[in-house]
Amino acid sequence: MLKNYRFLTSGESHGKCLTGIIEGVPAGFNINTEEINNELQKRQQGYGRGKRMQIEFDTVEIKSGVRFGKTTAAPICLEIQNKDHENWKEILSIHSRDKNDQKSFTAPRPGHADFAGKMKYNFEDLRDVLERASARKTAMNVAIGSVAKQILKEFKITSEVEILSVLGQKDYEHEIEKVREMGDSLGGKFKIIYKNVPIGLGSYVQWDRKLDGIIAQAVMSVPAVKSVEIGLGCEYEKHLGSQVHDELYFDGQYHHKTNNAGGIEGGMSNGEDIVISATMKPIPTIKKSLNTVDLKDNSQCEAHFERSDICAVEACAVIADNMIACVILDEFLDKFGKDNIDEIKKNYEQKA
Amino acid sequence: MLKNYRFLTSGESHGKCLTGIIEGVPAGFNINTEEINNELQKRQQGYGRGKRMQIEFDTVEIKSGVRFGKTTAAPICLEIQNKDHENWKEILSIHSRDKNDQKSFTAPRPGHADFAGKMKYNFEDLRDVLERASARKTAMNVAIGSVAKQILKEFKITSEVEILSVLGQKDYEHEIEKVREMGDSLGGKFKIIYKNVPIGLGSYVQWDRKLDGIIAQAVMSVPAVKSVEIGLGCEYEKHLGSQVHDELYFDGQYHHKTNNAGGIEGGMSNGEDIVISATMKPIPTIKKSLNTVDLKDNSQCEAHFERSDICAVEACAVIADNMIACVILDEFLDKFGKDNIDEIKKNYEQKA
Amino acid sequence: MLKNYRFLTSGESHGKCLTGIIEGVPAGFNINTEEINNELQKRQQGYGRGKRMQIEFDTVEIKSGVRFGKTTAAPICLEIQNKDHENWKEILSIHSRDKNDQKSFTAPRPGHADFAGKMKYNFEDLRDVLERASARKTAMNVAIGSVAKQILKEFKITSEVEILSVLGQKDYEHEIEKVREMGDSLGGKFKIIYKNVPIGLGSYVQWDRKLDGIIAQAVMSVPAVKSVEIGLGCEYEKHLGSQVHDELYFDGQYHHKTNNAGGIEGGMSNGEDIVISATMKPIPTIKKSLNTVDLKDNSQCEAHFERSDICAVEACAVIADNMIACVILDEFLDKFGKDNIDEIKKNYEQKA
Amino acid sequence: MLKNYRFLTSGESHGKCLTGIIEGVPAGFNINTEEINNELQKRQQGYGRGKRMQIEFDTVEIKSGVRFGKTTAAPICLEIQNKDHENWKEILSIHSRDKNDQKSFTAPRPGHADFAGKMKYNFEDLRDVLERASARKTAMNVAIGSVAKQILKEFKITSEVEILSVLGQKDYEHEIEKVREMGDSLGGKFKIIYKNVPIGLGSYVQWDRKLDGIIAQAVMSVPAVKSVEIGLGCEYEKHLGSQVHDELYFDGQYHHKTNNAGGIEGGMSNGEDIVISATMKPIPTIKKSLNTVDLKDNSQCEAHFERSDICAVEACAVIADNMIACVILDEFLDKFGKDNIDEIKKNYEQKA
Repeated sequence: MLKNYRFLTSGESHGKCLTGIIEGVPAGFNINTEEINNELQKRQQGYGRGKRMQIEFDTVEIKSGVRFGKTTAAPICLEIQNKDHENWKEILSIHSRDKNDQKSFTAPRPGHADFAGKMKYNFEDLRDVLERASARKTAMNVAIGSVAKQILKEFKITSEVEILSVLGQKDYEHEIEKVREMGDSLGGKFKIIYKNVPIGLGSYVQWDRKLDGIIAQAVMSVPAVKSVEIGLGCEYEKHLGSQVHDELYFDGQYHHKTNNAGGIEGGMSNGEDIVISATMKPIPTIKKSLNTVDLKDNSQCEAHFERSDICAVEACAVIADNMIACVILDEFLDKFGKDNIDEIKKNYEQKA
Repeated sequence: MLKNYRFLTSGESHGKCLTGIIEGVPAGFNINTEEINNELQKRQQGYGRGKRMQIEFDTVEIKSGVRFGKTTAAPICLEIQNKDHENWKEILSIHSRDKNDQKSFTAPRPGHADFAGKMKYNFEDLRDVLERASARKTAMNVAIGSVAKQILKEFKITSEVEILSVLGQKDYEHEIEKVREMGDSLGGKFKIIYKNVPIGLGSYVQWDRKLDGIIAQAVMSVPAVKSVEIGLGCEYEKHLGSQVHDELYFDGQYHHKTNNAGGIEGGMSNGEDIVISATMKPIPTIKKSLNTVDLKDNSQCEAHFERSDICAVEACAVIADNMIACVILDEFLDKFGKDNIDEIKKNYEQKA
Repeated sequence: MLKNYRFLTSGESHGKCLTGIIEGVPAGFNINTEEINNELQKRQQGYGRGKRMQIEFDTVEIKSGVRFGKTTAAPICLEIQNKDHENWKEILSIHSRDKNDQKSFTAPRPGHADFAGKMKYNFEDLRDVLERASARKTAMNVAIGSVAKQILKEFKITSEVEILSVLGQKDYEHEIEKVREMGDSLGGKFKIIYKNVPIGLGSYVQWDRKLDGIIAQAVMSVPAVKSVEIGLGCEYEKHLGSQVHDELYFDGQYHHKTNNAGGIEGGMSNGEDIVISATMKPIPTIKKSLNTVDLKDNSQCEAHFERSDICAVEACAVIADNMIACVILDEFLDKFGKDNIDEIKKNYEQKA
Repeated sequence: MLKNYRFLTSGESHGKCLTGIIEGVPAGFNINTEEINNELQKRQQGYGRGKRMQIEFDTVEIKSGVRFGKTTAAPICLEIQNKDHENWKEILSIHSRDKNDQKSFTAPRPGHADFAGKMKYNFEDLRDVLERASARKTAMNVAIGSVAKQILKEFKITSEVEILSVLGQKDYEHEIEKVREMGDSLGGKFKIIYKNVPIGLGSYVQWDRKLDGIIAQAVMSVPAVKSVEIGLGCEYEKHLGSQVHDELYFDGQYHHKTNNAGGIEGGMSNGEDIVISATMKPIPTIKKSLNTVDLKDNSQCEAHFERSDICAVEACAVIADNMIACVILDEFLDKFGKDNIDEIKKNYEQKA
């Protein structure tokens, strides 16, 4: 839970809707619903997505916390309908019913939450895991992050997303087509850059206040992400100190000659671009059969396949970008106050 | 702040002492002070450390929370003396005094917290940043983590640390000697493995409950760490899904054929070893001069050099190992209760 | 934010709906929607309520986190429609519009959040305060508490609510009628008793872990509550120690001869009934005019009156009861685990 | 745990020392150690205290976080020696030793944490409860609160403490002497007033952000406190709405005609004095024997008596005052920023 920009999400992959509540949004800010929808669409696009993405264009409904287009400091409630819920009404009914008509799903799919989730929560039907464990829920994180991004933009803090590599290729569309034919899947590596972040967000004084640590949590929590790097990241170990530390100079303002640190030194933003990269593992739902165990009798079997994406690295990057926005806004509010946008602006400008 | 195993640390690099308070330690556990001291010594050793490490063998004093060798559930207070504080008594006096005798340090060293810290906290003397930003403080995190490790060990949860590479070399002592002569510094990459972690720590239900996310924060918060990977990490993007997802089989117990996921799927431990790797950037204090700006007049100058380590990757790995112990214990207490060690054992055994 | 049973609510008094998300509900528990609705109805009843209460019978919709009647550990989303939202669609539109048609409300009503809320959040129209500050939002807290109460009931932990006094009278219906004619309003004092709470919830080890402290926050946060007492409460200062401390005896089980402490000693439940009482201030919306200042020109004026309750002490008690349920469940999960209801039961029974 | 002004304490009643770590103190503030000591002395004084208070004048040592008299934003470590620890070195040794020489204390004293603490933590010797449960630990809370009070004072926010009643008497010294002779004990009721608190601390937007709720937790968590009231508190139920709601007027500034609400409306400070009152139960350690059960054989017996205070209401009020200071500072930092005192002052002044 972030300190200021606090939020919880709910909703299943094929349930009625996804819901999010954000608490701690300053009053008096003009929210643009279209921008949230644009961000949601970005999550749904990208080369390598499956059919579901084409039929279901997510749109958000703001259910509270905004009046006449402006935030009121009251918690903002966001809702995104699941358009294909109609077909799942029976399977995901909230109402109690005769157990006999359930067709349980009992063979955990490798690479998914199925196995550990079942062991933790003691379910008979793995659907009780996968409906919430599904990356579908991240649509709401994107909506919540999009509100954060809009507020950051008011202070000229913006972000860029770049796909670095898929199967080792920068230009990866061809790879995806090849892999699609093979019935297999792909991951990828991406980079996110935050510009104009003020100096001094985060702190070195206690481990849990370090900006890089909080960002790392936010990015690693995105489904399928398995690495997080700041600046040079893993490359740092291949260089001497004299080659990689960012020297300081002054030309009316302070600048660093290079930005290997990715904008964070001592757990604080240092005025340079904040640069984060992350790796997504391949989509674990694949046509090519993977072996597993049917938990109802411990027999060996093949994992179930539901139509899926081939590669979702672009979506993953959008989700990570929006999670980072939440973190940066949270620290921004810590430094500049949090009650209303005018007060925050005055505090910010006086500092600048 | 973790939920159950809550702690705060204090102390400066050359101050009187480092202090830590841990709240949430179950009652009735036999603490071994020698094991804490061993862990502290591990942090101080390793090829490439500077002279300070040789003179100062840290030892911990337990000041509260333990009676007759056993935890009492009362907060545990740990203290580590700074042995060379004697020489710094004047420079770090807590008492108010005439400003004139201060010799301020005003040129931020590249790669350090100096610049951002000064801008954030509005100091004249950068020493006010560096004394707390120094990695010296991590000795206390190691002591706190060592208590966590001892409790985990009671449940057969243990860890291993391995240095993977320094300047691209697995066998790196030669590199360090070369670089020492050059007056330069090095980082490195390391791996930490946690064994016997029960299935189902962490959760997919909300972003901030994912075990991999919390571990990523803990590791990235270790000074100088710039990347965190789980399992295959960055390598994942070079493989097809069918090659990397860990198949399940049953031979009386459940096992995965491989452990590319590094023991975490869907944000939960899945019963396999938890495998984390991380990269440390080169020590930023180097003999070879780096350029910077003197903030008192914005003139260009060379960064100050204090005697330092050449390479501290082994220490960094020890710190990360201990931070991860805190996270895993925290989640363990979440699942199995937290009041006293007998009750926790019963809950644990009944589940096993 | 509670540690385990985490929730956020959203929604305005006359907005589209109230929403709540609960995170941390154990899996495998049978939720009874009718019981939630019964609890909501209890909040709406009681002698002295206004007309709104008669037309609007709240019912909850569970939108996620439950399948086939059972919790799935996924966050539970609850929604309560505001039935008279139709009449407020224009006034509370979330869409940006021409300022001119707004009729602003600018004279803060004494006893309400209006004045401080305006100063904090910088609103022109006090409606932006009152819509969220309204006690209407507590319907969602009741729904959330009702889920907690159902889980507690599974462990035989139940509560009772009693109105102690209104205008000094235990039998207060006559008072209410008299005051209604006078165009005035009333508060009241009530008591809540929790039975069968296991020994040892809460702790003395750190200030923020004391059960009485957490309960006090939960009850004082109920709108209009101005006092919270545990057991004898304020009466304690009128007695000698020898008269009021609860002696212990053993008859196969441990009991206290009296329960002046209200079931909490040293910040922990001690096995006796937990007894909390609280005072509600009179409804601040009254027909009889109160003086105030119109903030648009600082002229003196009379406070606006909207149809309101005369006395809502019974509703207030229901809300407090449900907030206490959340706290007790939170501590219960801390002690007995939180993943699924079977595991919690085993841990609980083994302890009993 | 507060959000910004985060602290943990440790230490036993007769252990070596009490320790506190505060994280989140703004940089650049001049700390006055003497003022902390004065506050500690206030806690030790008051009519009705026992002999221990006369021999042991607490003084604090600042061990980190301050340089040349000024805070550095680094965590502040405070230590208070327990002067009579010398006599308890054996009984409270942290070192493991032969069980036989322990003389266990096994009969829980009524009114203390002994019974519930033993059941929760599974101790053989009740001393393992009482050493931490003792109110001795609050000396550290006072020291921590005193730092908060000093910072608040920089913004002209000050407090006053008043004893309202002991055994129903405003003038209570005579009562105490009488009760001392009887070998009995007393509680009492007190009031704390905070002046010049800016408008708009706390919020109505979510239950856990209400200032009155957070204050109630802080005060109820003070050992032996059993009631907390804001403003008129319990008296509210004896009045009509028209008699008690605080009307607003303007004479260049906004004022309320009365302050029955005790300075908090809608969970926010409203610019008037914040007025809190609380009741302390009688000291539970009394000469006059109370009955209890010896837990080692469940036989009936008399509770053990250790020399104690007759009445500690003045000390209790000092502790509560300091806890409230922590809460108010925490919310103050939320609104005006938290990095350094100059920045906070600018933000504060611009708002004023």
